[in-house]
Amino acid sequence: MASVSDISVSAAINLLSALAFLMAFAFLRLQPFNDRVYFPKWYLKGIRASPRSSGPLVKKFVNLDVRMYLKFWTWMPAALRMPQPELINHAGLDSAVYIRIYLLGLKIFVPIAILAFAVLIPVNFTGRTLDHIKDLTFSDVDKLSISNVPAGSERFWAHLIMAYAFTFWTCYALYNEYKIVMAMRLQFLASEERRPDQFTVLVRNVPPDPDESVSEHVEHFFCVNHPDHYLSHQVVYNANKLAKLVDQKKSYQNWHTYYQTKYERNPKKRPTTKTGFWGLWGKTVDAIDYYTAEIEKLSEEEIAEREKVISDPKSIVPAAFVSFKSRWGAAVCAQTQQSSNPTIWLTEWAPEPRDVYWDNLAIPFVSLAIRRLLMAVALFFLTFFFMIPIAFVQSLANLEGIEKVLPFLKPLIEAKGVKSVIQGFLPGIALKIFLIVLPMILMAMSKIEGFTSLSSLDRTAARKYHIFVLVNVFFGSIVAGAAFEQLKKFLNQAPTEIPKTIGVTIPMKATFFITYIMVDGWAGIAAEILRLVPLIMFHIKNTFLVKTEQDRDQAMDPGSITFAVSEPRIQLYFLLGLVYSTITPILLPFIIIFFAFAYLVFRHQIINVYDQKYESGAAFWPDVHLRIIIGLIISQLLLMGLLSTKDAANSTPFLIVLPVLTVWFHYFCKGRFESAFVKFPLQDAMVKDTLEKATEPNLNLKAYLQDAYVHPVFKCVELDRPRAVDDEENNPLVATKRTSQRTSQRDSLPGSDGISESRV
Amino acid sequence: MASVSDISVSAAINLLSALAFLMAFAFLRLQPFNDRVYFPKWYLKGIRASPRSSGPLVKKFVNLDVRMYLKFWTWMPAALRMPQPELINHAGLDSAVYIRIYLLGLKIFVPIAILAFAVLIPVNFTGRTLDHIKDLTFSDVDKLSISNVPAGSERFWAHLIMAYAFTFWTCYALYNEYKIVMAMRLQFLASEERRPDQFTVLVRNVPPDPDESVSEHVEHFFCVNHPDHYLSHQVVYNANKLAKLVDQKKSYQNWHTYYQTKYERNPKKRPTTKTGFWGLWGKTVDAIDYYTAEIEKLSEEEIAEREKVISDPKSIVPAAFVSFKSRWGAAVCAQTQQSSNPTIWLTEWAPEPRDVYWDNLAIPFVSLAIRRLLMAVALFFLTFFFMIPIAFVQSLANLEGIEKVLPFLKPLIEAKGVKSVIQGFLPGIALKIFLIVLPMILMAMSKIEGFTSLSSLDRTAARKYHIFVLVNVFFGSIVAGAAFEQLKKFLNQAPTEIPKTIGVTIPMKATFFITYIMVDGWAGIAAEILRLVPLIMFHIKNTFLVKTEQDRDQAMDPGSITFAVSEPRIQLYFLLGLVYSTITPILLPFIIIFFAFAYLVFRHQIINVYDQKYESGAAFWPDVHLRIIIGLIISQLLLMGLLSTKDAANSTPFLIVLPVLTVWFHYFCKGRFESAFVKFPLQDAMVKDTLEKATEPNLNLKAYLQDAYVHPVFKCVELDRPRAVDDEENNPLVATKRTSQRTSQRDSLPGSDGISESRV
Repeated sequence: MASVSDISVSAAINLLSALAFLMAFAFLRLQPFNDRVYFPKWYLKGIRASPRSSGPLVKKFVNLDVRMYLKFWTWMPAALRMPQPELINHAGLDSAVYIRIYLLGLKIFVPIAILAFAVLIPVNFTGRTLDHIKDLTFSDVDKLSISNVPAGSERFWAHLIMAYAFTFWTCYALYNEYKIVMAMRLQFLASEERRPDQFTVLVRNVPPDPDESVSEHVEHFFCVNHPDHYLSHQVVYNANKLAKLVDQKKSYQNWHTYYQTKYERNPKKRPTTKTGFWGLWGKTVDAIDYYTAEIEKLSEEEIAEREKVISDPKSIVPAAFVSFKSRWGAAVCAQTQQSSNPTIWLTEWAPEPRDVYWDNLAIPFVSLAIRRLLMAVALFFLTFFFMIPIAFVQSLANLEGIEKVLPFLKPLIEAKGVKSVIQGFLPGIALKIFLIVLPMILMAMSKIEGFTSLSSLDRTAARKYHIFVLVNVFFGSIVAGAAFEQLKKFLNQAPTEIPKTIGVTIPMKATFFITYIMVDGWAGIAAEILRLVPLIMFHIKNTFLVKTEQDRDQAMDPGSITFAVSEPRIQLYFLLGLVYSTITPILLPFIIIFFAFAYLVFRHQIINVYDQKYESGAAFWPDVHLRIIIGLIISQLLLMGLLSTKDAANSTPFLIVLPVLTVWFHYFCKGRFESAFVKFPLQDAMVKDTLEKATEPNLNLKAYLQDAYVHPVFKCVELDRPRAVDDEENNPLVATKRTSQRTSQRDSLPGSDGISESRV
Repeated sequence: MASVSDISVSAAINLLSALAFLMAFAFLRLQPFNDRVYFPKWYLKGIRASPRSSGPLVKKFVNLDVRMYLKFWTWMPAALRMPQPELINHAGLDSAVYIRIYLLGLKIFVPIAILAFAVLIPVNFTGRTLDHIKDLTFSDVDKLSISNVPAGSERFWAHLIMAYAFTFWTCYALYNEYKIVMAMRLQFLASEERRPDQFTVLVRNVPPDPDESVSEHVEHFFCVNHPDHYLSHQVVYNANKLAKLVDQKKSYQNWHTYYQTKYERNPKKRPTTKTGFWGLWGKTVDAIDYYTAEIEKLSEEEIAEREKVISDPKSIVPAAFVSFKSRWGAAVCAQTQQSSNPTIWLTEWAPEPRDVYWDNLAIPFVSLAIRRLLMAVALFFLTFFFMIPIAFVQSLANLEGIEKVLPFLKPLIEAKGVKSVIQGFLPGIALKIFLIVLPMILMAMSKIEGFTSLSSLDRTAARKYHIFVLVNVFFGSIVAGAAFEQLKKFLNQAPTEIPKTIGVTIPMKATFFITYIMVDGWAGIAAEILRLVPLIMFHIKNTFLVKTEQDRDQAMDPGSITFAVSEPRIQLYFLLGLVYSTITPILLPFIIIFFAFAYLVFRHQIINVYDQKYESGAAFWPDVHLRIIIGLIISQLLLMGLLSTKDAANSTPFLIVLPVLTVWFHYFCKGRFESAFVKFPLQDAMVKDTLEKATEPNLNLKAYLQDAYVHPVFKCVELDRPRAVDDEENNPLVATKRTSQRTSQRDSLPGSDGISESRV
């Protein structure tokens, strides 16, 4: 058990390391040659360009202005300066709402911390139970926790009242936030410019018809059943194989460029490669010739496949994007059931074009149901039994095995110092790799489940990850032992015993979690802003692959908020804060620092770095809300369990009301707000339609929608870039002007002045 | 523990008593003066009329034809003879599907019983564990049950395989039945004639507008947002007080008629009454004068109230019935969200006019949410703690108390024989009264929850009653002790222990449940067909109140299927059958007899007696399906618990798969079928619209819909009778002819020949 001074030291170390990261960041971001790593968003917007200005060459790579280094902290106020409406225009609603999660953390925990420090810490400290116990397992931290209150004391009423106060405050904050986010979403949707997805509905499970093609069948069905509103439709080609070919060709082209560059720099020696996996095995060949030949072969294959996809009716999947003459018509079709058989003609609002996950559009209903079952079972086993295969791998992964598989590593491994390090390191490495790979596994599982948009994939993967974190990090840290052992234990315990068992351990784990918050939270966030991996990758690519300005654009990896991973991690901090608010309030300041720091960093990141792959309009908020509610209920149950072991029989029953009220609050909020995130009110659609009809009476909507939902491989423009940018590229002459005029579009950049003030 | 011979005796007694009921029924139903009790449906249809035929007077009251008595059993084949499509036309889809629940019981349990008798009974009987135990707690029945198999035996594999077979068979039967019912519902909806609810949507929570009345606001909103489809609307008046006045006036009129008749028969003495409660207290007055005055007073009040309701804008509630030009328009409006605020402009498909529960149309959203919370808490306490107030009442209800409150009963109570009977009877009477009142309490709770149609009220009350029966009858019978004691016990037990505790007791309770099935099931169904209470009530009314033929029509009490009470009771038999199918298969024949007999009786009742108050189109089926699934899962968990106490460690884990698969099956069916019961496919609406436009191009829909959704007190026609009959009354000259021509309407009566063959 760590004492207060231990924690102070740990806090100091972590603060220093965070500070070191920040200093490194402050230094690196000022170097022009890192500009595309730390400000990629502005490049993608077309506002910034590579430094072409006059001056000495060195100035293009290194910043020599000393005054700049003295103002290294200016990014912080700059990050906070951009007002919210501009932030939404600049980074999209998803990002703007995402950082509000951190803000919500502050809103919830700052008042709770003040109250807890004012009331609970004095109550606990004057409990003086631990003064008489000279036991090493208790530390100074515990003197400020509920452990210091004697069993059966009337003081527990204070904790009980505080539990009520905290619950009501949390619910109040949650309610307010849900209301604000809903208003933001509705305003965002209402103020959006015309977008193809506003008029379009995704139709799945088109039933087969012996006499008609899919396209004809869709057209006839909607002509009959939505006669006044149907406009056009776009069939979906199964172009998964083609997309793979295109990707592979792109990769070969990169290698080709790499060897070409290598050869140009060192023209004496033609570079060689091996034909096997990752260039590690196989016959040695001339690299440039090899890749030239491969690219040619692939190009031919690609052309053949492209033709086959377009001409073969079998490559049309039974799904289509159906467009309507008005938003009203699309809203009606998306919300209603078309056929009396609910497994065919399934309609849902189309995701925006770049949000579509094309591979999953053709899964039939029964297959979907079976996939969901299998994935639910798989998630259960993954969560509770993942330790078993890892232990197995660990038993296999010893030095002898590695030497056998990778013989060329032998001399390195045999070196004495290295050997002992590896042997100590190896058992943990399987687990570490698993944890790194886990989000990908969960995403793959979500893909198997058949969701049709990237945003919904992110959301379901986050749901799965949340369960995993809850079971394995939170409960796993509190109750020792692998998850499946816990499961067995809990199944054989009374339901009323479980909160007791866990509740009792909670106060003892406070110091552990404080350290966890500092290491994982503080230092993790500081590492996030440094962007070490993208920094290295960019410079590697820049050295070997970049030839033109366009190549350099592509070498940038702006990244995006990895919702599926980061949101469940935030939830862990919410959970810790709620659980410890009544038990060990001293933990709260650490949580608050985490939220404040993370808010700052992520606000900076979404302004300067991240480039979201899609825009869902904060569709994830109901999930965030639900998970905080789950954390709240867990905290209430654990407090109940803890108090019932403290002989506080008078007060404990009063706590039963809290979870009931919280569950009810959840359903109340669900009824009150959720539909704004899943449905599409006709009134709003009608307002936008009417406005558009008045302002643009001659709009040719059919032409506008014609190519909106074509599979990306059939488009000749860049694939990885958002449409908004594509539009600008098509009108390069007016782009800048238009940009500065628009206010309702995310392209306007009023905050850029604040950011670039520290630039050359 | 009852032996096989005990059960045989009990079975014989119950069979005989059931037979006695049947004989009484066979006799009574042939008497013409009971005709309106046993064949009210045909009177309401206008097919039968009171016997006016020639012949001796006695023949009008007593049936003297001996041959008829010999053919007393003819109602049974007659009940089975009407084919299903005719049955649907005659009695409505609700009734036709309701009796399919019994049929489903037969479909599930007959094959299960055959398999269980062929496999499990021999396996159990040759287990021979109980042969060596000369314990009185075991009986012959147990020799055929799983108790006879030695612990740790390999024979349990038979039970395990059978559990799989039974589960798959049940799911197969459920799937098929769901499919059939869905098809029946869709066909019913498609073949229906034009009805006002097809074009109408119920709009609730119309937001207040300072400048417009509710009516104007509704009109403007729908004119703007459904411009091509909106037709008209009907505001809802808060006429609850007026309806109460009308009811009271009706009751006073009945009393007036009663005393008038009394006076006419005995003109020497003017009848008197007391002005207090139920004529028991207060001043003695001349009855006829008193009621004449009261009726006059009420009539005036009624006129004043009627005018006030119509003229006062405050009596218009913020809800309206909005009608559309086409079914398509109504289907769209019912399924979509209107406003971005999901708590206002709530639209749902309007219930048919006679199904509307008028009192609940004006409840705001927040109030609804709070009501649901309170009722959920109330249901929890009602289910688990109802014994506490009853025990309290029992302690109060002693003879002295009764004598004090009702002094005039004193001489009766003091009689020696009576006293001891009452004293033995009294403690149970509070419980008995509670159980009789319980359905009314549950219905009142559902009304407080704010449902807007009688059918949904019935369904939610059934849900509540099912929980009550499950906890207090099923688990209450297995585990002794009051429900709240069980609850406490279970909360303090491990989740894996609960199925064990209950599972172990299950085989021992088989004989108890066999007796229960015979008493509650067999005899209860036989009592149902005898209709003792309506019989007595009819003759009382007939003697004292009936003056005209119309009065006699009103004196009939055809009753209806009390879904909220009977369906949860059927579910108990499903549960018993599923639980005991693997454990004590000897119970199955008793269940099968129950289902067969009930099917016969209820088929007779819905053909000849019941008159449904509304038609929901079998909207209750998803609930029925879900509850059978719940029974299936309970049976699987209990078998798991039982086997795990039998040292069958090898086989038990294989059972875990079953509940998982069953839950998945439920979700599969939900996705596959449920939407047919809650949504309204646009395709079907469009087909009907197109057909109607072609056949009746000049239809004046506005006139047709004008008065459809007027509160019943504003209609001058009979209130308690369904609209279909009202229509006929309005066209008395063509009614009979039209009736025989129609085939798609529930008024056609091809089965009547079969029924009336045994009549005079």
